[in-house]
Amino acid sequence: MGAVKTKRMPRAVREQQMLDAAVETFGRRGYMAASMDEIAELAGVSKPLVYLYLNSKEDLFTACIRREAKSLVEAVRTGVRTDLPADRQLWDGLRAFFAHTGRHPHAWSLLHLQARTHGEPFAGEVAAMREEIVAFVTQLIAIAAREAHRDPDLPEREVAGLAEALVGAAESLAAWANTDDTVSSHQAAATLMNFAWAGLGNLMNDRPWSPPPA
Amino acid sequence: MGAVKTKRMPRAVREQQMLDAAVETFGRRGYMAASMDEIAELAGVSKPLVYLYLNSKEDLFTACIRREAKSLVEAVRTGVRTDLPADRQLWDGLRAFFAHTGRHPHAWSLLHLQARTHGEPFAGEVAAMREEIVAFVTQLIAIAAREAHRDPDLPEREVAGLAEALVGAAESLAAWANTDDTVSSHQAAATLMNFAWAGLGNLMNDRPWSPPPA
Repeated sequence: MGAVKTKRMPRAVREQQMLDAAVETFGRRGYMAASMDEIAELAGVSKPLVYLYLNSKEDLFTACIRREAKSLVEAVRTGVRTDLPADRQLWDGLRAFFAHTGRHPHAWSLLHLQARTHGEPFAGEVAAMREEIVAFVTQLIAIAAREAHRDPDLPEREVAGLAEALVGAAESLAAWANTDDTVSSHQAAATLMNFAWAGLGNLMNDRPWSPPPA
Repeated sequence: MGAVKTKRMPRAVREQQMLDAAVETFGRRGYMAASMDEIAELAGVSKPLVYLYLNSKEDLFTACIRREAKSLVEAVRTGVRTDLPADRQLWDGLRAFFAHTGRHPHAWSLLHLQARTHGEPFAGEVAAMREEIVAFVTQLIAIAAREAHRDPDLPEREVAGLAEALVGAAESLAAWANTDDTVSSHQAAATLMNFAWAGLGNLMNDRPWSPPPA
């Protein structure tokens, strides 16, 4: 309410505004097509100030990837309580993941598409995030195997493959849900949970996975 | 055996050699970093001849995407017999998919990573291929639902989401299998088939999906 005067802001606050504008612009237009002029305008600052604070388009892009990767991993970790059963952890983790990618579609486009094909250091930044998520899921599957007393039976390679499959499925569904307004993040999480936990064979026989009571 | 003399070749043959060299170079280096010099050298032709036949780097890249997308879709379609049960079709399709991506890792890198983030028309070409594969998988899941007499119960939206999940899982596993020499295409297909059909819950309880006798 009322007119807010533009004031001197602490550098940290300004930088976050620049990163917000950059994530949106890179996410919308792609890395190559995004211009520093556009980013500065969207952030409401001068272009020289963007260069002063973030140095170059490359450094700005890297800073965006780093911030958004950290934010996504934190959202998933915060959503999961590691003292709960594995299927509950997976369900909570998937809900946290899709809620985050749904709320931040440009950030997801940046991480999922833009960051992976413009060489280093960008690809390395996002690969590190993906490895962290795959490691988290791998651990979850290993816990599920322990809970089912299957520990010695499920080879490490198989667990790693299942984790890669699950992460790939989540990536694909996040992109899909973001292009279709009628798909909620809860629906995307439920679809993937059913796919991953019950499997298509069980879904066909009307034996879906059921979420635990909250 | 013996020395083979360089001969005049039909244009179509030369073009395929150029595309072979281009797919390898784009797949290895990425679209931006790949040079026409390098592609011409690998193809054993002069750079002007590449421009004469394929016109520009953009057109060459588009021709590569188009050829490789067609080749991958054909490999999957050829691997599947539509008169067999849905789980058998899925198993055959997955084996064909991973066999193809494993034999053509540069083509897979081109389709999965390079083609998706350099704007149009490249993104559109690969999106069309992906839609064709998603449609194929959607149909398979619908057939499975019919076979299990679940047709009216499984909403179209849910089937579309499951197909997106399965395709995303396959994309992720193909990239993973191509970076790990110890994972065969058969193993990647078996991991995904178990994940997709039996689900993690059943795998944990030692109820994997079993391939049908050949």
